[in-house]
Amino acid sequence: MKDEQIQLSHGSGGRLTHDLIREVFHRHLSNPYLDLLSDAAVLPESRGRLACTTDSYVIQPSFFSGGDIGKLAVCGTVNDLSMVGAQPLYLTAGFILEEGLPLSDLERVVSSMAETAKAAGVQVVAGDTKVVERGSADKIFINTAGIGWIPGNVDLSPRHIAPGDRILISGSVGDHGMAILSQREGLEFNTPLASDCAPLNGLVQSFVHHQGLRMMRDPTRGGLATSLVELADASGLGFEIEEEKVPIHEGVRGACELLGLDPFYVANEGKLIAIVSREEADSILATIQRHPLGETASLIGRVVETHPKKVVLRTFLGATRIMDMLTAEQLPRIC
Amino acid sequence: MKDEQIQLSHGSGGRLTHDLIREVFHRHLSNPYLDLLSDAAVLPESRGRLACTTDSYVIQPSFFSGGDIGKLAVCGTVNDLSMVGAQPLYLTAGFILEEGLPLSDLERVVSSMAETAKAAGVQVVAGDTKVVERGSADKIFINTAGIGWIPGNVDLSPRHIAPGDRILISGSVGDHGMAILSQREGLEFNTPLASDCAPLNGLVQSFVHHQGLRMMRDPTRGGLATSLVELADASGLGFEIEEEKVPIHEGVRGACELLGLDPFYVANEGKLIAIVSREEADSILATIQRHPLGETASLIGRVVETHPKKVVLRTFLGATRIMDMLTAEQLPRIC
Repeated sequence: MKDEQIQLSHGSGGRLTHDLIREVFHRHLSNPYLDLLSDAAVLPESRGRLACTTDSYVIQPSFFSGGDIGKLAVCGTVNDLSMVGAQPLYLTAGFILEEGLPLSDLERVVSSMAETAKAAGVQVVAGDTKVVERGSADKIFINTAGIGWIPGNVDLSPRHIAPGDRILISGSVGDHGMAILSQREGLEFNTPLASDCAPLNGLVQSFVHHQGLRMMRDPTRGGLATSLVELADASGLGFEIEEEKVPIHEGVRGACELLGLDPFYVANEGKLIAIVSREEADSILATIQRHPLGETASLIGRVVETHPKKVVLRTFLGATRIMDMLTAEQLPRIC
Repeated sequence: MKDEQIQLSHGSGGRLTHDLIREVFHRHLSNPYLDLLSDAAVLPESRGRLACTTDSYVIQPSFFSGGDIGKLAVCGTVNDLSMVGAQPLYLTAGFILEEGLPLSDLERVVSSMAETAKAAGVQVVAGDTKVVERGSADKIFINTAGIGWIPGNVDLSPRHIAPGDRILISGSVGDHGMAILSQREGLEFNTPLASDCAPLNGLVQSFVHHQGLRMMRDPTRGGLATSLVELADASGLGFEIEEEKVPIHEGVRGACELLGLDPFYVANEGKLIAIVSREEADSILATIQRHPLGETASLIGRVVETHPKKVVLRTFLGATRIMDMLTAEQLPRIC
């Protein structure tokens, strides 16, 4: 299979599609739901409210320091489910492949998806493959949709956010975006940059039942700043953020300075923002810090009644400025 | 907005992404689940087993006689859910857009999705938009995933198929594929060809509770022949099909003859195959024929113990031949 390439016939629905499904997808992703090969997977009745989400992944390059498009396609969707307090259970996967893609690349991506799904405790229960002519797509695009169940006692909503609440970040920001950008541009730094791409459901399970948890969001495209603006807007309240409290890897800070980018607007793929009550902030922060994906978690700000729906940043120098959403395209195809 | 085009910034996750979501997606697809704009939609607990499925749509051209990529993206996924006996309820939609796509084209597609979703009684509860550089995709690709509930008394499985069972088709075959092909190639026929693209859940609801229903499949990519081979293979039994019983529009038959194509291998997007008990075959056929989408339904064959896992076609001339799955790429990007 080493020299084989994806052909248009692999997407025809006929014999070659079946061969590809059997030899690549099922070999790595096999489970009782997927293996039935019916038009739709039949799953058990839900225990609790359903959560569902979708994301398409078009990241370029497909393989990068810290992950690949397959790992990302599992993590991104697992994380979106986790943010509403759901236990992620099932994924669907839709592949759009460019004619001529080396089969070995596809196999590497699918194998990485399988490994990440296993680590996150989710199953890929339905899939689809389309092939388009050379030049009609860029190598490989993946869509995943995810389904999870929300335990009865979990109720996260921007309506619960109140003045005095604290704002936590689970670790350093900007790692994913800067790893991709530096690789794409062929930049080398003393400190190698790696994507933070990781499934957050384990971390979330460690504190999701805390009464003081109001709301979560994972700051992906648009970075920390855009997610904070979205949360402030949804809550109707103001946020105050202390710049010096936001963890940033030295390498990321240096690369951002060199390239004139603001790390607060650079994408993350393994971080979460949590809004928590003032009373439980220390306890939840400590719980997050005990998890391997939250060791450098930090309390970065608080919710205020003044300047509703605005996020104000207090800088290193003591000045304040209003943070806006990302307005320009900072980094295309970052996820 | 008439002359506006999709820019890379529409996929950045920042301000322009939010504008696009509000002005195009939410304006057409609005519902309480989607409007919350959270990382994942929170849906009610399921009543019955869950069904879930996914498909990506890369059809070229995006607009065709009888439909467009938006209508198709809803119908295809609604139909896959319907085939396992589920009531389709929720869809997710992931868009991959090529930089430079006219915003008016996107709006037309989203409006068509909304109309089809309304007709099928489903809601789009989660979405995602990515934009890739000019030349890295071909105008517009859509992925939809679907979720439905399966009533407790519905139990469809190839294990239930038994010798003597009858095979029904809900109408003429080959319409979708030949409509796309003739439009793509600029062919004109006396009888205009139109895609049969339609949501089948209403038709399925009319007979899904019949005790005699064993199994369904919608013969999309690979056509009637490929789906029959898949069903025979899954059942472990043989199928006998009478060629003259399979309805084919005159225009489709003529176009196929002209182009040297076999209509049994041409894609459909609004037809279903049903395997039913001998005793209930007439009653189920009559029920299907009473539905607007099943008026030309036909009993096309039966299940036999001889030649297990093989589909044998009895031709107009009385000869028999074994039908295989589609082996070559007959029509790329047909869905």
